[in-house]
Parts: sequence; structure tokens; C-alpha cells
Amino acid sequence: MSEAARPSEFELIARYFAPMAGPAGLGLLDDAALLRPGRGYEVVVTVDALVAGVHFFPDDPPASIGWKALAVNLSDLAAKGAKPDGFVLTLALPRGWTEGWLADFATGLARLATEAGCPLIGGDTVSTPGPLTISITAFGTVPAGRMVARSGAKPGDVVLVSGSIGDGALGLSVHGPDKPAWVSALQAQDRAFLADRYLHPRPRLALSEALQRHASAAMDVSDGLVGDLAKLLKASAAGAEIDLDAVPLSGPARAAVMADPALTELAWTGGDDYEILCTASEREYSALVAAAAEADIPLTPIGRIKSEAGVVTWRENGEPRSFARGSFSHF
Amino acid sequence: MSEAARPSEFELIARYFAPMAGPAGLGLLDDAALLRPGRGYEVVVTVDALVAGVHFFPDDPPASIGWKALAVNLSDLAAKGAKPDGFVLTLALPRGWTEGWLADFATGLARLATEAGCPLIGGDTVSTPGPLTISITAFGTVPAGRMVARSGAKPGDVVLVSGSIGDGALGLSVHGPDKPAWVSALQAQDRAFLADRYLHPRPRLALSEALQRHASAAMDVSDGLVGDLAKLLKASAAGAEIDLDAVPLSGPARAAVMADPALTELAWTGGDDYEILCTASEREYSALVAAAAEADIPLTPIGRIKSEAGVVTWRENGEPRSFARGSFSHF
Repeated sequence: MSEAARPSEFELIARYFAPMAGPAGLGLLDDAALLRPGRGYEVVVTVDALVAGVHFFPDDPPASIGWKALAVNLSDLAAKGAKPDGFVLTLALPRGWTEGWLADFATGLARLATEAGCPLIGGDTVSTPGPLTISITAFGTVPAGRMVARSGAKPGDVVLVSGSIGDGALGLSVHGPDKPAWVSALQAQDRAFLADRYLHPRPRLALSEALQRHASAAMDVSDGLVGDLAKLLKASAAGAEIDLDAVPLSGPARAAVMADPALTELAWTGGDDYEILCTASEREYSALVAAAAEADIPLTPIGRIKSEAGVVTWRENGEPRSFARGSFSHF
Repeated sequence: MSEAARPSEFELIARYFAPMAGPAGLGLLDDAALLRPGRGYEVVVTVDALVAGVHFFPDDPPASIGWKALAVNLSDLAAKGAKPDGFVLTLALPRGWTEGWLADFATGLARLATEAGCPLIGGDTVSTPGPLTISITAFGTVPAGRMVARSGAKPGDVVLVSGSIGDGALGLSVHGPDKPAWVSALQAQDRAFLADRYLHPRPRLALSEALQRHASAAMDVSDGLVGDLAKLLKASAAGAEIDLDAVPLSGPARAAVMADPALTELAWTGGDDYEILCTASEREYSALVAAAAEADIPLTPIGRIKSEAGVVTWRENGEPRSFARGSFSHF
């Protein structure tokens, strides 16, 4: 469509964003939104940005981009034990954007916003001569003093991860334009599973209350298990011993590893998992796993927190193993 | 400097951003920040993005860019009657960024953050193949139910603006690369004043408590007085009668208008003022003006709210006057 036929910022907001707005957004007609945490609650704030060509492919389905932009933020809220309340969106639209693109983007975004009970409450839409850029700041609430920090892991705590690790990084290979040889060795349904895990991460919000009640520390795995565990340990001034053989892989990921055994390294370091990495004391551990099971989310113990700060012993088949490249760097 | 010599994201945060972080930012080491509004308070949220080449010149002094990115958000908080509490920053750095640029950017940002008592509490730093892009989400608090909305203007209310209007738009001409003829007619100190008003808007935070107590509606003037008043009236389902001769101009702006009388239109419609446009009932009006005077901020009555929704009568020298282009459009 021609630039002249494009809706104004006001029309665009009314058409695509107002329908997913919550009451806190004041109809998106004011300069500001209002958060009203209940008495005894605090507001958890998280922000994540995605840039076309850096964090996703410019020609990814716009609904998937919209979904993922919110999902990566909700994943942080889940890890902090917070219940999502709303989000604000900065959208920098590149030259040549179309209304059809925007409608699909809004559909994907609204689908997750609705599913998670996390309405849009404000935003800013601007134009850019560069690539599409999305920044979302999301808000959640926790009972006062109950946010699950990265810094609470204690020696002796069990280290656990939710779901399965590596699907996102493998899915990027499956979905991206340069497919490695192993991709063709997979069955179509395994390829579809991995690509979907990359495109549509499911934030583990069903775990947030259990984490808030029972975890000593938590974060989401977005930059790779190996690198993200290092961050959690740094914040906790602790070390860990991890059994890599215990790290849960999905069926399709195991199929990929069968085709190319070197892929375990990608699975452990590659990122885009949006699973929860957490720790729990011996005492709270069983209650945490039971609560997770009730929410239908597997939570797998993979090791123990140790007292020696910063020292991680990774073991594969009982042998120590090291990693050259810890995690995905955003620049 | 070479890319190889650049600090990692972690080092960059520790070096430039951690020093301006408040306790709510948890040392910028967690995935999230925590807002703890006092009992009986609510959180006001506002978000504004700036893109190099769209909202500022790529070669503007980095300290000025840092200052302005926060200032435009604090201006929104001031207009809502909120006291700033903190902000999160998304920074998309273009290829070729240097550590010197970033250090200066952080200095300008930290200067205003300190002055306004509004610490950094979180953020996300990413790379972009496009232009430098900054998005800030800022948080403030108001007593519950006391946020000043755009929607509260009532027929009979007085319409007021703070400070002076038009300096920002005129300052853009003075500062930008294509200087119109009138710029050379100005004295050096007037040029410096206008350019500074464009580069370093001062959010009217000293007005926020007075607005919260006495204003019926308010917003900041960022897209031009004419267009922004239309937005306030739309939200309030009201009209207005405005005396353009009463709109306050600074001495340097008056000097510019002397050099080119057509510049009044730019002053009234041009934007980048970051002044407060507000309304107050006859009853609250004097208290509002007195409180503003105590804060050393002039607040000038420029007209009245009328009941006919959407109808604005602009008068210049007693004659009706209309505007073809209401306000700056962000795309």
C-alpha cells in the first residue's frame, strides 16, 4: 500500500492496539498508564528489545514476531514469581511497513496478551530509517518481599530446569535460511516442533506461583543454560556442580543429537530456550517439583549449588567438561 | 576504537549504567526491577522513544541525547502530577558506536536522573544495523486516584501553559543544518538560548504537585500547542476558546518573530516545547497559579474550555485564525 493510504498514528492505535488494551491503559488516549498494585504487593518490571535481523528474521511471520516480543518479557516475569499485569510497547516501524503486516503483528501479540492476562497499557509508535525494532516493558506483581531474585542460591540447593533445553537454538537452525546438514536428517514433525519452539516460546507463567513459594533463586534461560547459570551463580556468589546428562532434551532435540552428537554443545549454550532455571533448598525442593507437576510442567534436577563462588563443574558421562563460549552475546 | 576492544554488555553496564542505578534496580544484575509504591500510592507509567535521524541529529552531543531521552519522559510524569521514581532504558546501539560516545551519553542521562531523583532501575542493550534507538519507560507515583488525566477539562475551566511556547521548534531551526534566513538576524545569545531549549528540555517536575492538587486536566506539550490542545479536548469531549496573543513567548522567540512574523505559526504548532498544558476550574485556578509561582514557574492563562466538543476558536488580534497542520506527526 502507498504511504499516503497509511493510517495515522491515532488511527493505527485505535484500530490495532486499543482492542488489546486493559483499563490501566486509559484507552491509550492519555500520556501515561496507571498501575495499582493491591495492598501488600510490589511491581516487578522487566524490559526486552528485539531488532529485525538481530533477534529475528525480518521475514518471520509478523504474528510470530508479536508473540515472541511479549513472550520473552513474560518469561522474565514468570522466573521472578510474578503474575503479569500489563505491558507497554515501543514499536519503531521501518520504511515500507504495511498495514497488513501490522495487523498480523498485533494479532500475535494480542493472542499471548489475552492468554497470559497481560493487557497492553501504553506505548509509543515511531518511524525508523532502520530495521523494525520492538521494545516491551512488562509489569507483574508479587507479594511484598517475595520476588525471586537471581541472588538467593545457597550451597546445597538443588539446581533445576523446566521443560527441555536446546529446542530454541536447534529450532533457529531449522527455521533459518542456512540449514545445516543434520536438519534434513530429521522427520518433518521434529523440524516443525523445533521451529515452533524457536518462533513461539511459551513463557512458564504456570510456574510463577510455585517459584515464588519455594525457589531460592530463579531466572529464565534466554542466552543459553551454560551462560545463564554463570549469571545466576555470580549474583548468588556461589558455584555449582552440574550433570549435563541430566539436562532434559525433547524428543526432537534427541533426534537431532543422534544425527550429529556435537549438537549437545549448541543445546547447552545456544539460548532462546525461555525455560526456567531455578534453585531450591533440600527442604523446599519436593514441594516445588510437586507444584510444577500439578501445573503440568516438568522440572528436572540437574545439579547442586556449591560454595566456591564462580566455579562450575560440568560433567558429561562422569567426566569434567568445559565450554569455550558461555552464552549468546547480544552485541 | 576497534570492535574487538569494546567492552562486553556486562562491562558496559557495570561501567556506565550501574553508577546511576537506584536500589530498585537490584544492581542491574537481575532480570527485573522492583517498584514498591507506598501505601495509598499508584504507579504512573510513561514511555517515549527517540530514533537518530528522526527525533534528533545523529551527531548531536551524546550528553544532550541522553538528557533529552529522559527529559521527554519526565515531562509526561510532571504533567500527570507524578513524582518520578525510576526508569528503564532500552538502548539499540548502531554499528560503529564508540565507548567515548557511550560515556558521554551516560553522563547526560545520569545528570538529569540525579537532578530529578529518578534512577535507572533496569534496561536492555542490543545492537542494531540501523540508527541509534532509545526507548525509556519511566515510573512515578501519585496518591491513589490523583493522576491528572487528559480527560478532566470542564466547560468554564481556564486553559494555561507553563513557561514559554515555541522555543523548541525555533531552536531546532537554529541548531539544525539548514538554517533559515531569520536565524542570522538573531543575536548569538538568543540563538544559544533557543538551541539549548531544543537540546535540553527541562521537565516541569516542580509543577507536578500543584497540578496534582489543583488541575482538572493536563498533558505536556511535545507535538505543538495547537495539536496537543486538540488531543486534550478530544479526551475531555470539550472545546475551547484560545487567545493566541496570550500564548507566552520567550524574549529570544519574540526576537525571532520580529525578524520573521510568520514564525508565530511555527511557535504555536511546532512542538518540542516540553511545557505543561493544563486546565483548572475557576475555583482552583488562583491556587494553581500561586503554587506555580512559588515553584518559580510561570503559568499563563491563554483561554477557556467551552462545551462544544472538538471546536477550538483560536483568536489573534481578536480575529479567528485557523491552522492547516495541527501538530508534529511521529510518522
